[in-house]
Amino acid sequence: MTAASAPDASTNPDLFQARLAQIAGEVEGEIRRALSSAPLPLEITRPDRLLEAMRHGTLNGGKRLRPYLVVACADMLDPDFARQNRAGLIRAATALELVHCYSLVHDDLPSMDDDDLRRGQPTVHKAFDEATAILAGDALLTMAFDLLADPATSADAQVRLDLITGLARAAGAGGMVGGQMLDLAAEGRHSPDQAQLQLSEQQIRQLQSMKTGALLRFACEAGAIYVRSAPDVRSKMALFGQIIGQAFQIADDLIDVESAPATAGKATGKDAAKGKATLVSLKGIAEARAELDRLTAKAEDCLAELGRDGHELRTVARFIATRAF
Amino acid sequence: MTAASAPDASTNPDLFQARLAQIAGEVEGEIRRALSSAPLPLEITRPDRLLEAMRHGTLNGGKRLRPYLVVACADMLDPDFARQNRAGLIRAATALELVHCYSLVHDDLPSMDDDDLRRGQPTVHKAFDEATAILAGDALLTMAFDLLADPATSADAQVRLDLITGLARAAGAGGMVGGQMLDLAAEGRHSPDQAQLQLSEQQIRQLQSMKTGALLRFACEAGAIYVRSAPDVRSKMALFGQIIGQAFQIADDLIDVESAPATAGKATGKDAAKGKATLVSLKGIAEARAELDRLTAKAEDCLAELGRDGHELRTVARFIATRAF
Repeated sequence: MTAASAPDASTNPDLFQARLAQIAGEVEGEIRRALSSAPLPLEITRPDRLLEAMRHGTLNGGKRLRPYLVVACADMLDPDFARQNRAGLIRAATALELVHCYSLVHDDLPSMDDDDLRRGQPTVHKAFDEATAILAGDALLTMAFDLLADPATSADAQVRLDLITGLARAAGAGGMVGGQMLDLAAEGRHSPDQAQLQLSEQQIRQLQSMKTGALLRFACEAGAIYVRSAPDVRSKMALFGQIIGQAFQIADDLIDVESAPATAGKATGKDAAKGKATLVSLKGIAEARAELDRLTAKAEDCLAELGRDGHELRTVARFIATRAF
Repeated sequence: MTAASAPDASTNPDLFQARLAQIAGEVEGEIRRALSSAPLPLEITRPDRLLEAMRHGTLNGGKRLRPYLVVACADMLDPDFARQNRAGLIRAATALELVHCYSLVHDDLPSMDDDDLRRGQPTVHKAFDEATAILAGDALLTMAFDLLADPATSADAQVRLDLITGLARAAGAGGMVGGQMLDLAAEGRHSPDQAQLQLSEQQIRQLQSMKTGALLRFACEAGAIYVRSAPDVRSKMALFGQIIGQAFQIADDLIDVESAPATAGKATGKDAAKGKATLVSLKGIAEARAELDRLTAKAEDCLAELGRDGHELRTVARFIATRAF
């Protein structure tokens, strides 16, 4: 199976960007539906201000990388099944995005990273208030599981349960939330009198694998779960997700030290200003670049071992390594 | 089927208290296991400080009313099945308690109810810090779904999915979190410049049915889900839960106006001090008491219609109406 002669995402970066934008549009449609002010069945009323805050925290121009990975991995593993079950696949992908968005809403809070702006817009607690931001985050996290448990997401009950278990583990105390906790400790942010920890390389890797890595890893695994791949394929997709998650973080750290804010599209030099160790500060730019190259090669090997037409995901791995999107 | 000659919870209030304490002990054992510092499989590390905060927010002497209701309802509907599947039933019940506890951790935060003490102990953000309390709450909510999705909770995948859907709806924007949002608005707490809303009777009922009612309602429904009751039985149990939830709230409001703090075991007169309307302030103590009596009768009717040996749950309804535990 080869599509080398057709225009595809690997030979045409614009096509990859178009695929990303296409999936982002579908996911945003799903979020809009889920957060519509229209009354639900059973006369359930959801407070307008809460729904507005939830929309503010989710419909803010995100790239939707995690949903993209769910869909692209499912597409690669079983294109026919993924196409026939597109609406359900988008719902599954949207659940991951809701969890990602809730984590940003909570991370931005004054007692956490204390950010006033995200993507040039006021963060939820600035646009609304702190209590509303906490509750909006809570409600988004809860809604993700509601979405996954719904038969409209997958006709296969075991698929829904595997997605729920996987998401809960990737997002919980042993994953994203645990990583955020380690990050706060690394920044000495738990309380004014708490000393900042200087992390070892191993601790940095642990922190990153939990804080951002766990959900990226699960996004790729979720694509395999959705199309009911065999366990070995599922593990391989999780490994692929883990590798690109590591690349994503190193690329992010490199941008923080190398780029001007205008190029990066966000404030840079933040890690150094906080005195925060990263793999880049610990090992230097050259070694970080070399590791990024090794990770990209490893991600490609991973796809090659699957024996699938992984040209689109190869492009993703390269794009992530450069953060050129 | 009658147990009128045997000592039971309806003829012996001490036995009801003993049942409540028994289930609380089982639920706390489950929470301890779930939050143990022992490493998880797959070398997943959970930060110690996060686990400590999660334990602080859950193992604080709660009465465990919601898990009790799950277990007691399952016991009434299918005693043999409930007995044979006790460990799984306790896991399901524990998931509801984790959600209840997370909501208390977040509600106590400075930007929400700003409480320093709960059951005489420092609240999680006082004992740890605000960021840790937010993350501990997030992790407890996430863990509840992990617990429910696990086959150890029920061998029946549909039961697990129904529990997840029901919990997500009871806890989310159309349930508990939405109710907390309405409560903050009613107290004018969203921001210093926001006017306090004066709620109508209907709005108070709506707020209470969401903030505390939804999870109590679901606790009773969850018992029916667990033992795979027919849809009409499940609806009837949800109705029973809704009624005792209403009674629970009126009893709470009555305690707030009638009791000395030492008797109530917590600060009283809080609603009046906040200028917050309750059904008691709106309709007077006598009418509130009369409604409580009507609700207790209605709860008993509900059990009678089920044609089961509901003596224990009848006692529960009466205990809740007096809050005498």
